[in-house]
Amino acid sequence: MNIDGQAWRTIWLEPDGRSVGVIDQTQLPHRFTTRTLSSCGQAADAIRTMVVRGAPLIGVTGAYGLMLALQADPGDGALAAAFEQLDATRPTAINLRWALERVRDRVAPLPPAQRAEAAKREAALIADDDVAMCEAIGDHGLTLFQQLAAARPAARQEQPFHVLTHCNAGWLATVDWGTALAPVYKAHRAGLNIHVWVDETRPRNQGASLTAFELGREGVPHTVIVDNAGGHLMQHGQVDAVIVGTDRTTRTGDVCNKIGTYLKALAAHDNGVPFYVALPASTIDWSVADGVAEIPIEARSASEVTQIQGALVELDRPVAQAMLGSMATVQLSPNGSAGFNPAFDVTPARLVSALITERGVCEASEAGLQGLYNGA
Amino acid sequence: MNIDGQAWRTIWLEPDGRSVGVIDQTQLPHRFTTRTLSSCGQAADAIRTMVVRGAPLIGVTGAYGLMLALQADPGDGALAAAFEQLDATRPTAINLRWALERVRDRVAPLPPAQRAEAAKREAALIADDDVAMCEAIGDHGLTLFQQLAAARPAARQEQPFHVLTHCNAGWLATVDWGTALAPVYKAHRAGLNIHVWVDETRPRNQGASLTAFELGREGVPHTVIVDNAGGHLMQHGQVDAVIVGTDRTTRTGDVCNKIGTYLKALAAHDNGVPFYVALPASTIDWSVADGVAEIPIEARSASEVTQIQGALVELDRPVAQAMLGSMATVQLSPNGSAGFNPAFDVTPARLVSALITERGVCEASEAGLQGLYNGA
Repeated sequence: MNIDGQAWRTIWLEPDGRSVGVIDQTQLPHRFTTRTLSSCGQAADAIRTMVVRGAPLIGVTGAYGLMLALQADPGDGALAAAFEQLDATRPTAINLRWALERVRDRVAPLPPAQRAEAAKREAALIADDDVAMCEAIGDHGLTLFQQLAAARPAARQEQPFHVLTHCNAGWLATVDWGTALAPVYKAHRAGLNIHVWVDETRPRNQGASLTAFELGREGVPHTVIVDNAGGHLMQHGQVDAVIVGTDRTTRTGDVCNKIGTYLKALAAHDNGVPFYVALPASTIDWSVADGVAEIPIEARSASEVTQIQGALVELDRPVAQAMLGSMATVQLSPNGSAGFNPAFDVTPARLVSALITERGVCEASEAGLQGLYNGA
Repeated sequence: MNIDGQAWRTIWLEPDGRSVGVIDQTQLPHRFTTRTLSSCGQAADAIRTMVVRGAPLIGVTGAYGLMLALQADPGDGALAAAFEQLDATRPTAINLRWALERVRDRVAPLPPAQRAEAAKREAALIADDDVAMCEAIGDHGLTLFQQLAAARPAARQEQPFHVLTHCNAGWLATVDWGTALAPVYKAHRAGLNIHVWVDETRPRNQGASLTAFELGREGVPHTVIVDNAGGHLMQHGQVDAVIVGTDRTTRTGDVCNKIGTYLKALAAHDNGVPFYVALPASTIDWSVADGVAEIPIEARSASEVTQIQGALVELDRPVAQAMLGSMATVQLSPNGSAGFNPAFDVTPARLVSALITERGVCEASEAGLQGLYNGA
């Protein structure tokens, strides 16, 4: 995607072939900076400290982390140690383990001298596959959006096609295009008059920070709203479709995604607004049938609820001009009040209008997914 | 209610009889301070700058504002000017106008020399009436909570009775007790093992700041959550009842309340959790039948979405120790991203399990309200 007219991916091999560049997502949207990762340890740190985030991007970063490790020491011991180090950074990220195994299995049979180059090729392949998959999701979603937009009453045809999204399932979470936002970018480039309502997505505010940044830099019209506002907008006909990503999809079509997704799905259902979930096959968990009952939901630190980060705008006492714009953490609730921070929720398949995958669009059901994937 | 064991109201006449004390709510929860209002202008400022907020409290502050004006000048011109000045502070606050009219109509027929004393008595009466009304809501809600708690399966009896609330409809919004929180305080004092999930309530975070402060100082167990989390908690049986206040209730039982209330009502309905609305008769608008279609929703400043205030915890550059704890405003979204900020939404009566009023509990319907109020 573009940042002010220049094309970017979230991760790239530097020209020296021995280091990897990434966008530092901890500083967004307030500062756009990049980082160079020159060792496996730096790659692991980048994942752990969320310089990079989003399941697909974490996977690619892990793959390149193995390359960096093998460039320093291509032996079996170093390979195993690097695998361990990277795998431990985000234990619940299913995609990370998958990418690490893919690279390890590719290079382990080779003589050590060939391993680093093989890892480089494999990591690049994983990245390119991800881009292709996201772009395919974008194409399938575009068709859906075009049909929906055309089917609106004549009086609505002149208005923007309003899409609401939650969290960040954009290109910053992948290598390029994104999942839920891929159809949005495709539609914008295809000339559809699209506008995006961006849920800020407390507690980590990935919507207000990352999604709004992405859309703004690509030039897609958008408006940031609090997570509380979507239901009201849907009641008043201001949302034509909801589209979100997913961290895990059950074989029956239940969707585990960022906390609060379920509330938007309820509102969409109550107001006859289509609710779409965009996903690559890698998020489907064929072993799970009942998402609400079976998927354990990770509780993150309560401080993400009781505090928030942003760029300092003003202080209630004199402050040096140079301090303004610094990243500040502020306390929101009283000291002594506990917080609870479940990171995800599960939206039952009955509330999902359709799944948009790299293989096409299907019903959110076992039959729907089987139809596309043959129980893969 | 209590603040660390000492009983407080949100507003009181000072011993000199010529000034009024209030809690400065703009500083909560980070600093507990009071202010003395010694003139009508100071009372108007306190309302305008939200030192005091909440419809009932604004009304009482307005009433005392007229007293302060009449103490300085009891003439007809001064009375009219003070009425205008106070009425203009919050044009949509139906309660403010009602309280101002009540005091004016009481004192206008009197000789000027008697007006200030009459206004003082009337303001005190309005305050005492509000306390009595809130306490009655608390008593009716307590009965409901006790019945619900007792009806839980045996296995759940040992667990806390979990109530979820949105925004602040506590004693800080009234003179004492509150509306939605009155049953909570009554239940806690009656020995019910109660625990409150506190929606932080973006954008202004009245839950995380005011509700959490109230509950903490009174000693009621509570946990702050983001607005996104309630649906997940309800899916997992962690909420026994939802209770909220209302800014306006239609004669058919639709409820206009803080933005996001509708989403919690949908989740409660989807999970069989009772959803209660606590209200004094003064919020019922007998002229409105369809809340979603007829109630205009005020859009507040977008900066409430794109920025947030809190007490400074840390900065990403060296900062004097003395700066920590200062009230800081931070930017959350990219400069250039628009925000939209509807302040309220409407929850249709079909999602409301019951209304809890000062006259008792009724169905959220025209028949229910008529039964209690005889079309008053």
